[in-house]
Amino acid sequence: MSKPRSVNIVLPATSANLGPAFDAAALAFNLFLKVRARESKSFVVRATGRDTRVCEQVDEHLILTTYRDVLTMEGKPIVPLTLAIDNQIPIGKGCGSSAAARLAGITLAIRFGKLKWNDRQILSEASNREHHPDNASACWVGGVTVASSSGGAINIANIRPKGTWPLLLAVPEKVLSTEDARRTLPSQYSRGDVVANIQNSLLLMAAFVNGRPDLIRDSLQDRIHQPYRAPLCNLLAPLQELAGTQGILGACLSGAGPSVLMFLDPKTSATRAQHRIEAHLAGNGLSAELIPAAITNRGARLSFGIGR
Amino acid sequence: MSKPRSVNIVLPATSANLGPAFDAAALAFNLFLKVRARESKSFVVRATGRDTRVCEQVDEHLILTTYRDVLTMEGKPIVPLTLAIDNQIPIGKGCGSSAAARLAGITLAIRFGKLKWNDRQILSEASNREHHPDNASACWVGGVTVASSSGGAINIANIRPKGTWPLLLAVPEKVLSTEDARRTLPSQYSRGDVVANIQNSLLLMAAFVNGRPDLIRDSLQDRIHQPYRAPLCNLLAPLQELAGTQGILGACLSGAGPSVLMFLDPKTSATRAQHRIEAHLAGNGLSAELIPAAITNRGARLSFGIGR
Repeated sequence: MSKPRSVNIVLPATSANLGPAFDAAALAFNLFLKVRARESKSFVVRATGRDTRVCEQVDEHLILTTYRDVLTMEGKPIVPLTLAIDNQIPIGKGCGSSAAARLAGITLAIRFGKLKWNDRQILSEASNREHHPDNASACWVGGVTVASSSGGAINIANIRPKGTWPLLLAVPEKVLSTEDARRTLPSQYSRGDVVANIQNSLLLMAAFVNGRPDLIRDSLQDRIHQPYRAPLCNLLAPLQELAGTQGILGACLSGAGPSVLMFLDPKTSATRAQHRIEAHLAGNGLSAELIPAAITNRGARLSFGIGR
Repeated sequence: MSKPRSVNIVLPATSANLGPAFDAAALAFNLFLKVRARESKSFVVRATGRDTRVCEQVDEHLILTTYRDVLTMEGKPIVPLTLAIDNQIPIGKGCGSSAAARLAGITLAIRFGKLKWNDRQILSEASNREHHPDNASACWVGGVTVASSSGGAINIANIRPKGTWPLLLAVPEKVLSTEDARRTLPSQYSRGDVVANIQNSLLLMAAFVNGRPDLIRDSLQDRIHQPYRAPLCNLLAPLQELAGTQGILGACLSGAGPSVLMFLDPKTSATRAQHRIEAHLAGNGLSAELIPAAITNRGARLSFGIGR
């Protein structure tokens, strides 16, 4: 058998926080970062898809920086690579682009550095680099994930949502840094707010487990982060107004924003919902790119090519 | 067919709060309140099982008070009943005795008042009387339930835990009122505490959904109520010390206490765990009644007898 010439990695976009499940849950959806890598004399990156300018940087490239960091940390030689990137994930918009890029970099380091890392090590490395495990865990295993890091150790569990879960992502033009979004949050919360978020997080998880879209609207209610971030993400309030109408089950920030994730009723027309949302945003003097998607149970996948 | 002569109601014990899932989740376990009722000339109660003195009171009897209240509220005549009660649920110890009693009373009122109430009305009535929906929902539908009341409307969802979930209940002699236990709680919490409880609540739910006892120890960590209630419930701290040893997965307050609910590894001997716990409590100058149980998917059941 020929030695594999190229390594192919496909990783899904992810959305963390999911309304009440702040810093605790995420889901994977079917937009993908695809990376094909092979050894070469120097680092070369070619990119197609979204945000090709960011994807083609070589010096400050999140995949390659992670790749080089991990190899250096493990005392391995840095093998130069040629990357062909095809990216569908909006970058810097709260859709898990950095988690996907870091996991791609780690996977490449494992492959080209012949490292013996297990899933736990991979997720731990990605989570440390991300400063939280939510997006990385959903990106790696797919579906809906819950991640706890509060006891020091990271615990991750995966839930396969029952039924189909169509989504619509509203992506504004402006990027927003997670750090800026976090700075707006208060340091103390009332007991009532705490209880509401615990209740709604659990209800949301039960909605996924039992395939109950009827619970989405109420279960997305959040008192911990969205009320404080809404001023930075002007799409959120108008889109939340549509919850419960015309096949739109509910809306929440995707990650720290600025994108908004909408859950659609699987029984109604996504196109009609999309037109309704466009009109409603226009009526508020707003616009956004609307991207249809769905929760995917596919996590990161690795395959090998034997040709050039 | 003869007219049914007696109504039989069987309702499970329940444990609310479940560590981090404060005011949000509960489980049903296989100790039962059994009530047989038939029309009679005056109210008569006979009781067997636990706490027969409380169960035989007629004037301040939680089942009968609820029964009379609901009939009065609905403008129905109050039909006197003879009740035969067989009770296995410890009363006033955080094991859902009041939720079971209130649901029994409501069910009797529906039956003898010929009311057309659906599940939602029944649970709403019981939850209002309990001041929270956790125990009532788990008692009515069985398994593990999550209940949200934060948006005004009550939403309830049920989760059937995967696999078997053996429990051990440690019941002290002293009763504790939920109101006393609630008075010890602070009004504000740090963001770190909030996030820890959301994460661990979701992880606990995933442990049930996926049948993962390995997640129980970490997922039972709570920063919202147990640290403040521990001084009122002296069994908690010593039993939490045993988490992760000798088949004891973890421990949490049952409801607001004073009972402690322990999760046991289904693969190890419950008897050995019980001896270990007895010795550990004795070493701390403590004792408790230890009751083996398990999560049950059986909620409230109604049947009819046609004989006397």
